[in-house]
Amino acid sequence: MTAPITEKLLAAKKARGVSFTELEQLLGRDEVWIASVIYRQASADEAEAKKLVEALGLPAELADELTVPPLKGSLDPVIPSDPLIYRFYEIMQVYGMPIKEVIHEKFGDGIMSAIDFTLDVEKVEDPKGDRVQVIMCGKFLPYKKW
Amino acid sequence: MTAPITEKLLAAKKARGVSFTELEQLLGRDEVWIASVIYRQASADEAEAKKLVEALGLPAELADELTVPPLKGSLDPVIPSDPLIYRFYEIMQVYGMPIKEVIHEKFGDGIMSAIDFTLDVEKVEDPKGDRVQVIMCGKFLPYKKW
Amino acid sequence: MTAPITEKLLAAKKARGVSFTELEQLLGRDEVWIASVIYRQASADEAEAKKLVEALGLPAELADELTVPPLKGSLDPVIPSDPLIYRFYEIMQVYGMPIKEVIHEKFGDGIMSAIDFTLDVEKVEDPKGDRVQVIMCGKFLPYKKW
Amino acid sequence: MTAPITEKLLAAKKARGVSFTELEQLLGRDEVWIASVIYRQASADEAEAKKLVEALGLPAELADELTVPPLKGSLDPVIPSDPLIYRFYEIMQVYGMPIKEVIHEKFGDGIMSAIDFTLDVEKVEDPKGDRVQVIMCGKFLPYKKW
Amino acid sequence: MTAPITEKLLAAKKARGVSFTELEQLLGRDEVWIASVIYRQASADEAEAKKLVEALGLPAELADELTVPPLKGSLDPVIPSDPLIYRFYEIMQVYGMPIKEVIHEKFGDGIMSAIDFTLDVEKVEDPKGDRVQVIMCGKFLPYKKW
Amino acid sequence: MTAPITEKLLAAKKARGVSFTELEQLLGRDEVWIASVIYRQASADEAEAKKLVEALGLPAELADELTVPPLKGSLDPVIPSDPLIYRFYEIMQVYGMPIKEVIHEKFGDGIMSAIDFTLDVEKVEDPKGDRVQVIMCGKFLPYKKW
Amino acid sequence: MTAPITEKLLAAKKARGVSFTELEQLLGRDEVWIASVIYRQASADEAEAKKLVEALGLPAELADELTVPPLKGSLDPVIPSDPLIYRFYEIMQVYGMPIKEVIHEKFGDGIMSAIDFTLDVEKVEDPKGDRVQVIMCGKFLPYKKW
Amino acid sequence: MTAPITEKLLAAKKARGVSFTELEQLLGRDEVWIASVIYRQASADEAEAKKLVEALGLPAELADELTVPPLKGSLDPVIPSDPLIYRFYEIMQVYGMPIKEVIHEKFGDGIMSAIDFTLDVEKVEDPKGDRVQVIMCGKFLPYKKW
Amino acid sequence: MTAPITEKLLAAKKARGVSFTELEQLLGRDEVWIASVIYRQASADEAEAKKLVEALGLPAELADELTVPPLKGSLDPVIPSDPLIYRFYEIMQVYGMPIKEVIHEKFGDGIMSAIDFTLDVEKVEDPKGDRVQVIMCGKFLPYKKW
Amino acid sequence: MTAPITEKLLAAKKARGVSFTELEQLLGRDEVWIASVIYRQASADEAEAKKLVEALGLPAELADELTVPPLKGSLDPVIPSDPLIYRFYEIMQVYGMPIKEVIHEKFGDGIMSAIDFTLDVEKVEDPKGDRVQVIMCGKFLPYKKW
Repeated sequence: MTAPITEKLLAAKKARGVSFTELEQLLGRDEVWIASVIYRQASADEAEAKKLVEALGLPAELADELTVPPLKGSLDPVIPSDPLIYRFYEIMQVYGMPIKEVIHEKFGDGIMSAIDFTLDVEKVEDPKGDRVQVIMCGKFLPYKKW
Repeated sequence: MTAPITEKLLAAKKARGVSFTELEQLLGRDEVWIASVIYRQASADEAEAKKLVEALGLPAELADELTVPPLKGSLDPVIPSDPLIYRFYEIMQVYGMPIKEVIHEKFGDGIMSAIDFTLDVEKVEDPKGDRVQVIMCGKFLPYKKW
Repeated sequence: MTAPITEKLLAAKKARGVSFTELEQLLGRDEVWIASVIYRQASADEAEAKKLVEALGLPAELADELTVPPLKGSLDPVIPSDPLIYRFYEIMQVYGMPIKEVIHEKFGDGIMSAIDFTLDVEKVEDPKGDRVQVIMCGKFLPYKKW
Repeated sequence: MTAPITEKLLAAKKARGVSFTELEQLLGRDEVWIASVIYRQASADEAEAKKLVEALGLPAELADELTVPPLKGSLDPVIPSDPLIYRFYEIMQVYGMPIKEVIHEKFGDGIMSAIDFTLDVEKVEDPKGDRVQVIMCGKFLPYKKW
Repeated sequence: MTAPITEKLLAAKKARGVSFTELEQLLGRDEVWIASVIYRQASADEAEAKKLVEALGLPAELADELTVPPLKGSLDPVIPSDPLIYRFYEIMQVYGMPIKEVIHEKFGDGIMSAIDFTLDVEKVEDPKGDRVQVIMCGKFLPYKKW
Repeated sequence: MTAPITEKLLAAKKARGVSFTELEQLLGRDEVWIASVIYRQASADEAEAKKLVEALGLPAELADELTVPPLKGSLDPVIPSDPLIYRFYEIMQVYGMPIKEVIHEKFGDGIMSAIDFTLDVEKVEDPKGDRVQVIMCGKFLPYKKW
Repeated sequence: MTAPITEKLLAAKKARGVSFTELEQLLGRDEVWIASVIYRQASADEAEAKKLVEALGLPAELADELTVPPLKGSLDPVIPSDPLIYRFYEIMQVYGMPIKEVIHEKFGDGIMSAIDFTLDVEKVEDPKGDRVQVIMCGKFLPYKKW
Repeated sequence: MTAPITEKLLAAKKARGVSFTELEQLLGRDEVWIASVIYRQASADEAEAKKLVEALGLPAELADELTVPPLKGSLDPVIPSDPLIYRFYEIMQVYGMPIKEVIHEKFGDGIMSAIDFTLDVEKVEDPKGDRVQVIMCGKFLPYKKW
Repeated sequence: MTAPITEKLLAAKKARGVSFTELEQLLGRDEVWIASVIYRQASADEAEAKKLVEALGLPAELADELTVPPLKGSLDPVIPSDPLIYRFYEIMQVYGMPIKEVIHEKFGDGIMSAIDFTLDVEKVEDPKGDRVQVIMCGKFLPYKKW
Repeated sequence: MTAPITEKLLAAKKARGVSFTELEQLLGRDEVWIASVIYRQASADEAEAKKLVEALGLPAELADELTVPPLKGSLDPVIPSDPLIYRFYEIMQVYGMPIKEVIHEKFGDGIMSAIDFTLDVEKVEDPKGDRVQVIMCGKFLPYKKW
């Protein structure tokens, strides 16, 4: 199900021992966004694609494919069965309606954009066990009336 | 589909004109968590339940029901159709695998807990249009070997 | 499945013999948007809600409910079975990928917003049989990189 | 999932650097319809098929396959996960019933044909951000009584 | 799931002992179409609705509801479980592709309309066991090019 | 999804320019039934299989496979997305319950057989547009009591 | 989900302490068929319906409803979750293809009718634990050619 | 979907012209069970596997695979579309609840085992048309209390 | 969705302040089995039913309903959304095939019975956080050959 | 569907005749966990991976793949059709709500972790038939409030 180019890029990354954090510094783009390019969920411009392919020691011809707007959506079963990914689905089952109430109270009728949107993953060190912090930040889009 | 008690609490909140932010100050708990109690997705202890019911001007007997561990999961269609809630589902379709890669690289094999977990919703003011910030923070749970 | 308030508004509209076109003139809003308010898919402001309720000869108290951001999504089966509505689903089955190609070629990677969005329904007279014209117009949202 | 001929045509189009607008001028057919032929959702006649294949610099034998009525329907998951395509699905979830009401009021009981049907995609320039305009136009088909 | 008006009409029909064949003669419309009006799948005009309601000995006020274009689609499970109805679904599973081939060969690319369409049910007497004959007849709609 | 033998037979039929009507005359069987044999939905006897294979100019060895009772059911998505085939599904959504009522009134409790069954496709010429006529004829099977 | 009349009949049967075996003797019909009439999956004639209603000590008016051909299919989830019923579904998952092979070898291409069909449930005493025997017997229906 | 070994065994059986009845005599096991081994739904012991492979004239190495407990469940769509197999599914839709009532009345709360279970297919000759008899016999398992 | 009797029993249990452990001592049956009786997933005999109803201070007439074999299966969505229950579903997604391998290696081809089966829930105290222990114990049922 | 490496490991294990119990002793890890590594549902560290690969007589290069955190979830149909695995699904259908009640009574609101979790499979000898014992033990995770 993973695109062939994704497999090539991940294998090269593993073989080279390059981390996402290092790619972040090389490309000047966030590591989650770079991982999205690798998974063909985001499209890079030509310069970004070349830098990425080069950093992984792959032939320059591969860069081209990374610039085409992809058919997005990488999860196969309707409800994902991988435990790490499922937890985010569960969070919406449990906290979806409460989040909706709070956003409407703060912003009115509309949504958080998933396009004009950024997402960061941070490690928060904690003596009782480190924590994963996921920060989503999207433009509020109010419903247009016409 | 909404539980009768949820409808009573939301109606009272609206009639009183109390905001989630005010409830946050009164109860000393985050507004998203309070909204979760109202939607019967989280259970309060007795003191919290009483304070909440009182703040909304409702009879004290209602507090009891809010302390029972609920059958959780409030979204009806398997894939939610409300646009605000759907966007979070889409975020996982598009960024799910990239997030998984980055978390495993930073933490190893395991997941972000959705139980030992907090979630905040913030308004980020921006001249090009305000932004919704959602911060999820869960304990990293490494897979146990045995 | 239809909300009780929707049924009240549609019954009053029928009893009064008011058309959507007349409501469009009274409210200064497009008839499709007004129908969306009636179906609780869009939220009106207080002035709009009052004018609408009044135009249908209903008590003013009903206006309040029309201002609350609704849980959107009014189609019940996952694939709609009503023939008129199904045709739009079929149009995307047949023309979805071609539309995607053409939009990406004209605009780059991104989407047409369904929030900053308007929709008009027109009658195009034609001697071989009148035609229905549906004009959708949404802001192009390019994917943000970060 | 994409038919092999679709992949060949898209690759040739990319290699040649021919845009849909240019194909529109060469063939005297709308670019969305041409993209539909490429995706094997519409069938061309022999002359059209030859012109298209030639314009993309491909061998004439490929033209034949484009004239066979295809098994239509190109979207794989029941609810599409690609964000651009999903928005059209969401539009029907939110505005489907309102559109139905307005069409019935204007035309009586019947449907908009998805067969005797055209679809255009236009770019509407706007200083606040360009807009995508999608114009669907189908013959109204009244239900026959017998 | 059956609409309340459908239940009233069927009960009255049973109580009066009126057959569909008799209704066909009274209204000058086919019995299948009349049954469709009773099931709220087709809309009658005012004269037809009144005649039908009268023939069943019901109050004239009921006629009005039968003239409104209904939300169509009366089968509940996605794949119908009633054996009589399921057989038609099975017929398409088994003979769907062959029918498609033959229609395309006879007519070209297009469909049989389900709107400009009639359906008759006949009893064909046969010494080896009577046969049910279902005759569907719909206008051929060729795909429009644009 | 189409069986390899189906593809071979259809390709040979196309290359030879043989129509289903011609096959009907050669084999003395209806064209829809012949198309069903080609799609491996019906099994032929040895003589029929040989005549068919020969008529298409294919090697005699292929005939054997056409005589084995096949695993039937050729439509892939649960609800077919091809517009021509979907219309038959829609016909049952809209007219299924009315047909059931009329058949029960004419025949009592039972079903129309889909096994002791024939299906014809005819072209009905009409100045307002030719019509497709599909005639299904199955033995009525009354429910056995025991 | 159970029809109201089913609940009335089962309650009366329980209150009276009448077993299915006794009903079998009273009506001269098999107990499984009688249970099917009670569940509104089979329709009785007037005499049978009256005898059944009388045997359960219920008012004669109830008999009428039992003679109407019902909308059949009484299992709610697509895959039944009740363990006793699920086992029959599992039997077909495991032995479905083998049964198909054996029937085709013995009878040719066709099916076992589920309409011209009887079903018996027997208790087979066995020192190692009694066994349930279910005997299904349906007419073989060969596929018609035309 | 059929396992490669199943295809090899069925092809050899056809080429040799061996019937299931002959295999039954050779192996001293019922033909349905043997067909289940061929479809990899039941596992044979080494002696049985060797005899079967030998009877079909295949190399002895194939026997080994037939002794491994398989991943069972051979039907692909959730609701089977092959008419012969579907009828058994329909039988449970129609007679499932009645069977459940009768079994509970005869045996108490529990199920018919699908593991300690046998299944026979017989041909019952009948002048009005031969009948298929399927006899299922499973141990009754009462629910354990603890 | 919860049966009315379940709600009555749970409410009485809460009002009385009786724990499952206390019920276990009173009835001499495991607390999980008793909870299953309350949820109408297991049937009690008359003596057990009376003791349970009495222990909760409810009228004796309620006992009768608890002795009828129920239609089992209490989870509503196909994949449960409550986090506590979902974890067991996830355990089978992750460890299902490994468990199958190990059981077949230890026992041969067959299954663990879910009918001749017991289930215990224990609290295992642990300084790093108490643990939930669930012990399932079912009779091994080898596949019968015939 | 099984990963190629899983097939290689299982084939080597079979060829060598090594049991899971022997692997348990060699690696000092539980046999179920080892089977999970083989099925790519758990990730081993380098030392464990090497020992495992070596024990099966396979080249050392294979070890590497076993250390990558896998995309988990190995069951294909949403509701598993293999009888051994399905029983665990059925257990949750029948005993899920009772287990939930008992755990909440013993521990409060929270869940049993499926990550900080162990699972053992034991054979319990019993003269009436050996029993399979499955012991699940997971840390109780109380819901965090914030």
